[in-house]
Amino acid sequence: MLALDDSAIARDGKILILAYDHGLEHGPTDFEGLEERMDPQTVFDVATHDAVTSIAVQKGIAEGYYPSYEDDVALLAKLNGTSNLWMGEPDSAVNCSVEYAAELGADAIGFTLYGGSNHEIEMAEEFRDAHEAAREYDLPSVMWSYPRGQGLKDDTDPGTIAYAARQALELGADVAKVKYPGSRDAMEHAVRAAGGPNGTSVIMSGGSKVSDEAFLKNVKAVIDAGGAGLAVGRNIWQRENPTELLDALEAVIFEEASVDAALD
Amino acid sequence: MLALDDSAIARDGKILILAYDHGLEHGPTDFEGLEERMDPQTVFDVATHDAVTSIAVQKGIAEGYYPSYEDDVALLAKLNGTSNLWMGEPDSAVNCSVEYAAELGADAIGFTLYGGSNHEIEMAEEFRDAHEAAREYDLPSVMWSYPRGQGLKDDTDPGTIAYAARQALELGADVAKVKYPGSRDAMEHAVRAAGGPNGTSVIMSGGSKVSDEAFLKNVKAVIDAGGAGLAVGRNIWQRENPTELLDALEAVIFEEASVDAALD
Amino acid sequence: MLALDDSAIARDGKILILAYDHGLEHGPTDFEGLEERMDPQTVFDVATHDAVTSIAVQKGIAEGYYPSYEDDVALLAKLNGTSNLWMGEPDSAVNCSVEYAAELGADAIGFTLYGGSNHEIEMAEEFRDAHEAAREYDLPSVMWSYPRGQGLKDDTDPGTIAYAARQALELGADVAKVKYPGSRDAMEHAVRAAGGPNGTSVIMSGGSKVSDEAFLKNVKAVIDAGGAGLAVGRNIWQRENPTELLDALEAVIFEEASVDAALD
Amino acid sequence: MLALDDSAIARDGKILILAYDHGLEHGPTDFEGLEERMDPQTVFDVATHDAVTSIAVQKGIAEGYYPSYEDDVALLAKLNGTSNLWMGEPDSAVNCSVEYAAELGADAIGFTLYGGSNHEIEMAEEFRDAHEAAREYDLPSVMWSYPRGQGLKDDTDPGTIAYAARQALELGADVAKVKYPGSRDAMEHAVRAAGGPNGTSVIMSGGSKVSDEAFLKNVKAVIDAGGAGLAVGRNIWQRENPTELLDALEAVIFEEASVDAALD
Amino acid sequence: MLALDDSAIARDGKILILAYDHGLEHGPTDFEGLEERMDPQTVFDVATHDAVTSIAVQKGIAEGYYPSYEDDVALLAKLNGTSNLWMGEPDSAVNCSVEYAAELGADAIGFTLYGGSNHEIEMAEEFRDAHEAAREYDLPSVMWSYPRGQGLKDDTDPGTIAYAARQALELGADVAKVKYPGSRDAMEHAVRAAGGPNGTSVIMSGGSKVSDEAFLKNVKAVIDAGGAGLAVGRNIWQRENPTELLDALEAVIFEEASVDAALD
Repeated sequence: MLALDDSAIARDGKILILAYDHGLEHGPTDFEGLEERMDPQTVFDVATHDAVTSIAVQKGIAEGYYPSYEDDVALLAKLNGTSNLWMGEPDSAVNCSVEYAAELGADAIGFTLYGGSNHEIEMAEEFRDAHEAAREYDLPSVMWSYPRGQGLKDDTDPGTIAYAARQALELGADVAKVKYPGSRDAMEHAVRAAGGPNGTSVIMSGGSKVSDEAFLKNVKAVIDAGGAGLAVGRNIWQRENPTELLDALEAVIFEEASVDAALD
Repeated sequence: MLALDDSAIARDGKILILAYDHGLEHGPTDFEGLEERMDPQTVFDVATHDAVTSIAVQKGIAEGYYPSYEDDVALLAKLNGTSNLWMGEPDSAVNCSVEYAAELGADAIGFTLYGGSNHEIEMAEEFRDAHEAAREYDLPSVMWSYPRGQGLKDDTDPGTIAYAARQALELGADVAKVKYPGSRDAMEHAVRAAGGPNGTSVIMSGGSKVSDEAFLKNVKAVIDAGGAGLAVGRNIWQRENPTELLDALEAVIFEEASVDAALD
Repeated sequence: MLALDDSAIARDGKILILAYDHGLEHGPTDFEGLEERMDPQTVFDVATHDAVTSIAVQKGIAEGYYPSYEDDVALLAKLNGTSNLWMGEPDSAVNCSVEYAAELGADAIGFTLYGGSNHEIEMAEEFRDAHEAAREYDLPSVMWSYPRGQGLKDDTDPGTIAYAARQALELGADVAKVKYPGSRDAMEHAVRAAGGPNGTSVIMSGGSKVSDEAFLKNVKAVIDAGGAGLAVGRNIWQRENPTELLDALEAVIFEEASVDAALD
Repeated sequence: MLALDDSAIARDGKILILAYDHGLEHGPTDFEGLEERMDPQTVFDVATHDAVTSIAVQKGIAEGYYPSYEDDVALLAKLNGTSNLWMGEPDSAVNCSVEYAAELGADAIGFTLYGGSNHEIEMAEEFRDAHEAAREYDLPSVMWSYPRGQGLKDDTDPGTIAYAARQALELGADVAKVKYPGSRDAMEHAVRAAGGPNGTSVIMSGGSKVSDEAFLKNVKAVIDAGGAGLAVGRNIWQRENPTELLDALEAVIFEEASVDAALD
Repeated sequence: MLALDDSAIARDGKILILAYDHGLEHGPTDFEGLEERMDPQTVFDVATHDAVTSIAVQKGIAEGYYPSYEDDVALLAKLNGTSNLWMGEPDSAVNCSVEYAAELGADAIGFTLYGGSNHEIEMAEEFRDAHEAAREYDLPSVMWSYPRGQGLKDDTDPGTIAYAARQALELGADVAKVKYPGSRDAMEHAVRAAGGPNGTSVIMSGGSKVSDEAFLKNVKAVIDAGGAGLAVGRNIWQRENPTELLDALEAVIFEEASVDAALD
């Protein structure tokens, strides 16, 4: 594991990833009502907020827009991803090599694993190659660890989320991005499953847009549970002005503020 | 993204691709009534028209005929393609390596992606390899971004076309070739989905032969919507004398003429 | 395309391939009644006839018998092929690398493509590799272009044969070996589909044994249609003394004789 | 075969592997009731007991925790493994390359083979690559030889276990880890099937937690049958204080003690 | 083809392979009643008999036991093989690379091809790689040419056996190991199908244990039919003292003795 304290994608061992790969994963419908967000520049601008420790994008977005922002935000190159036109068992195309990500100036790589899918084994082996290549460039790896597919009844069950965190640890990911399992206790279980203080760091995946307070309470629970932070997408860039929420997230994640204090 | 302004396959940031891979994709039936067009030389002759900024052909055609025309037109080497004898889910064989295309004098590569097909993931990974190899030769990549296959009801639905344009952006294509989504508004949506001015350029795919006026109106709508131009095949080379239409296309695409002025 | 005029497997731009891979493709039953032909030496002897411009065999036959004949006949190394014990969709194993064929002294490579088979795409990609490797050794490639498999009703339909010839052109084969489509007109259509004079050369595949006159008439029609010649197997080596027919073929193919004159 | 006498993972030709890959293979449920064992450090501490000749873990665990223990215990890098979310025929992802395992300081590699699974052949070929690469680093290979999948009725049948041991020998594993076949005689049969004294060493796989006496009796039977030792996981680290049992195992395995003496 | 006269695995152009891969292919049941034969050393001892020109074993057996016998018998490294736990269409894992076989001191490689299996094409391509790599080490290749799988009604039918021998020739094997087709005439047909004197040598596969006389009569028929000899396994090592039968085989194969003379 690479220590988050020295990592280009963390600050003081805490992480806030601004995720922006929804155009590939969900398609243009995610931009309904705020079409200007289809222009990546508007989201890179958001990413310059101090709270954001990296922006996660696919190769094409990095190639087109990161050069203007490389002094302002770290790049988390999401290596795999697939459109939701795909009708097969959950799977994800490897759209970018580690070598190319490094050329684009990536500070870390991101990789999805769908545990439980018919493609789990193939994806794990693709992760192996990415992980070992990333080590040669000293790039940390963040695993989107999302059990999904045949046989999975409930993908936010605490046991499933803990398993997802454990898979990330055993396979060598430095950070595990998991769905929120519903409570601080369940999150603590996942953090422990990831090996504890010296293991894989666990962060919560933001999910669809909810109220500020509800969202911040979950984030606070993650931090209190020993989680390293958050990856957030729609909850931020689907707002016209996300500064206020980013300020609040900064307080909760990096300054140990309570939700009430953060919302003031 | 590579800037189209400097690109060998664009002029003033605008594109007109003469596509001529129908012999592989559709077979000899596309030449019915004008059999001399089966001789590639006759189409390369058409491609010398000033309006044409590149000709898109498969490896064998490039190998056999491009040497006589390399001073007259840029070569867009279409790397994958498949006969319509194929009965499986939409897929496309990679018939040419980037290295070999470069040896043949290619100025850009072309690659089909069938989003939504059972082969989408495999094709996206083949595109990754082609895209990254093309970058080493400084060749731009043009994606034929055609959602197709199980689960796709309507492949010219505006949302589908916008998704197709977005996939091209996220995966790193410099140009997205998409079907016409039916209106200027829908095309504008696709252009924005492709990231806007600094993103992936969007061009319209010509489709089957229609009347000059109807065709030019669509092209004009594409240009007005911020599209970079057109890829046209049958609408040009299925005519005995395509000069007139090429003149008109040149006016609409490169000189901002109206359809009426162009047809005069 | 490589010009046939300079090719080691043509004479004056014309081709007569003696094909002898039936032991693999059809099995020993093809030798019933003339068992001595199972000894490749007897067929290599036939190939020393002036009319024959190359002999097409699999790797093992080339390895065992070609060394004694390399001064007498050109070697067309058939790279893929499969026994008829195979019960799956039409497919063909790649039994020999281009590198190894070159070591064996091959003057050209041969490759089967089953357009329309469930394995078409895989075979096209294997052909790509073979074709591009062959270019490095300056070896022409001959495609056995045989549409076959699910969805193919009639594999000698003129449209199908023209499509087969076109596929060979688009994929970069120097010579297309196709079944006889039933008439000179249909053959002419196929020759044009292959790009005409500067495109891929088209030759007829011999098929099962028929009468001399019927056979020669077809060959004559191919030549008159602009075809480059013939690949023949059983019609030659299933005879005890094939010299007479080879003399006649030589007259028809290389000396523009009529069938009547050739049979005299 | 590499002689166990010189091996870094054996002592006096005897082996006690502490296996700790259950977090991946079974998930967090294996830690119920003793959650602190999810922290690998607590198990590495156990592994420092003199009786343990190596600890078997996946890449991520080795990467995160082995650096602090490399002077205290040998590392057996388990190269493949899969979560039990996987619903397909038994299979195992190759999560770590031999090269990377060597970089992590591995003293041996571990590899699962599911004989009888639909993936047996693919796994055997992956083992070939791992085995031959390991030879270049002089690393012994331990095969988890577990017949499983369609057609397997009883995976602890003496004939099946003997077959599992034989497969390990024929494929080149230095050590075969097999399930206990139920009796000393059956174990002796397996040891002989593995080639006897100069062949592959056979060790018993611990299985789920049972009483000390029952467990030690099986281990004693293995040693008496000529087996080289034991791989144990849950029977050790699911205890709060495993020292006593490790002391007993040390007596039985390395000091030829009886079960009664060992339990005193 | 490599001439058998100069081959390390033949003597005077004749072959007697002692095959000992049954532990992998059939499992320990083949050793019932004579368990000591599970120790490879006992079979290597048998292989030191003058009649034996090579011993055929899998990688693990070669690695463990051949070093002590390399002056006494030639090593035929069987590269592929699979347990009979496998329930799929006939297939065989490639368990050893040619490079590694050469390091182990192999004098030849052995490779199974199941013509007619759904895996025939994949196996033929694996044989291609093995064959061409073996040529670089000047190692002859022996093909276990066993038509098997869907569509095969009778795998000892004379036509099938002749086809098996022919496949070996066409694919480049130096020696074809085929089942006995029931008569000298049928064997002669197979020998001719393999190209005759300068083609691929044909040897008979021993099969399950039968009486000495019956067995020797078949061997004699093979020799009389022009076959190069025999591969024998169970008929030899399932005996407590195989010397007598080996003496008789030596007489029949190498000294042209009659069966009666050989049995005296």
